[in-house]
Amino acid sequence: MTNRKPLILVTNDDGINAPGIRTLIEVMNTIGDVCVVAPDSPQSGMGHAITINDTLYCNKIKVNPHEPQREYSCSGTPVDCVKIAVNEILKRKPDLCVSGVNHGSNSSINVIYSGTMSAAVEAGTLGIPSIGFSLLDYSLEADFSPIKKYLKDISVQCLKNGLPKGVVLNVNFPKLSKNKIKGIKICRQANAYWVEKFDKRTNPLGRDYYWLTGDFVNEDKGEDTDEWALGHGYISVVPTQFDLTAHHAIKDINSWDL
Amino acid sequence: MTNRKPLILVTNDDGINAPGIRTLIEVMNTIGDVCVVAPDSPQSGMGHAITINDTLYCNKIKVNPHEPQREYSCSGTPVDCVKIAVNEILKRKPDLCVSGVNHGSNSSINVIYSGTMSAAVEAGTLGIPSIGFSLLDYSLEADFSPIKKYLKDISVQCLKNGLPKGVVLNVNFPKLSKNKIKGIKICRQANAYWVEKFDKRTNPLGRDYYWLTGDFVNEDKGEDTDEWALGHGYISVVPTQFDLTAHHAIKDINSWDL
Repeated sequence: MTNRKPLILVTNDDGINAPGIRTLIEVMNTIGDVCVVAPDSPQSGMGHAITINDTLYCNKIKVNPHEPQREYSCSGTPVDCVKIAVNEILKRKPDLCVSGVNHGSNSSINVIYSGTMSAAVEAGTLGIPSIGFSLLDYSLEADFSPIKKYLKDISVQCLKNGLPKGVVLNVNFPKLSKNKIKGIKICRQANAYWVEKFDKRTNPLGRDYYWLTGDFVNEDKGEDTDEWALGHGYISVVPTQFDLTAHHAIKDINSWDL
Repeated sequence: MTNRKPLILVTNDDGINAPGIRTLIEVMNTIGDVCVVAPDSPQSGMGHAITINDTLYCNKIKVNPHEPQREYSCSGTPVDCVKIAVNEILKRKPDLCVSGVNHGSNSSINVIYSGTMSAAVEAGTLGIPSIGFSLLDYSLEADFSPIKKYLKDISVQCLKNGLPKGVVLNVNFPKLSKNKIKGIKICRQANAYWVEKFDKRTNPLGRDYYWLTGDFVNEDKGEDTDEWALGHGYISVVPTQFDLTAHHAIKDINSWDL
């Protein structure tokens, strides 16, 4: 970092007007020069989707005229937002990309479905230190005030220390008041999964359709996991990589008769 | 495996009528009992997206009355297809899930954008041995005949040996005639990324919009990578995991002043 203020790219998957991203913008404005490029509508569960068969719109807007940051509302996915920010909007590579604060958990296996985390991962592939932030409260009225201090502290440390190549951070906050939060734990992703329940209904034309609902199943009781940390009052920080190679399995597959 | 024929779930991201999945179905019918649950329209670049804010339709269809498999066309993403197949359509857990054959590469970093691979990963999270297959030819007229033998061999070996817990396979085929394919290499994912170029245009109403286009940049020349294998006439097989924890980075982040 030079003496100039760091350039911070802010995005999310709940849409540019969600309270979570407005909190994140407020905190980032105390650290650096902020540029927001975020979806114009909710994009939860979009994972690492990109828009390749459709057009993209990206409009300069001003949600609140009293705030200093530049803001762009984009018709695409969270990953599209990062791509268009870095390649079309920003004059230089940002020093930090922060995504969120997501309304709801992105711990454990949720990382692979999360638009919030996919935006952070996309920035990571471009060599930008990146963090996805999520609060374990799905409500649009969620209280983000207890986590503001941590949003700042973690972001400042990331700017100061950088991140190992190929690594971004997945930060989840328990839904607790400020004095109940016990601190921060660096964790591994708990080994959990979703068991889906499809809610089958019939539309007015007599055609069956489904709503996807599901139960989160976590049989991984490790005290080094994000689920354990969150369940015990801690903020979880999982260093997350996008080299998906299961290096330990290469020898095993090499023994196949192929 | 018992003596009964293995139950094989087939899906893809190019849609149920794409030549790639029709080839895969043909080959899987020689190995087991096949059930197809695939998108009703192209879903390329959908990554691990799921449908949570919209309804899902899933219709029993018969593309070719002479083929034995059960088939369902689904309005959702590739990941939705796997979820609805396993939780709603199939009576028992499949012995194998195969996804593809994708029209186009899913090697290297493309794994994170790929609906084909996300379907395989989703099945993997449910404990089903799973393989994503892709051919390095985007054309709808791509020739899949040179790879039929390998689709079968790799699937049979996967049924026979199983896969390590938490691991699925990402298999990419070079665009080569049968006698030019040199064999199979078990690889790691090359460390590459996309540099996007946004094609900016103006619509008839005077509003700017963009098309996402990009260049694939691979500075990783390792001979143990999928890109090296594919560039040298080999089929690449990358064991791929969905525990994204960068275990090696935990110590580093623990040294931060938090």
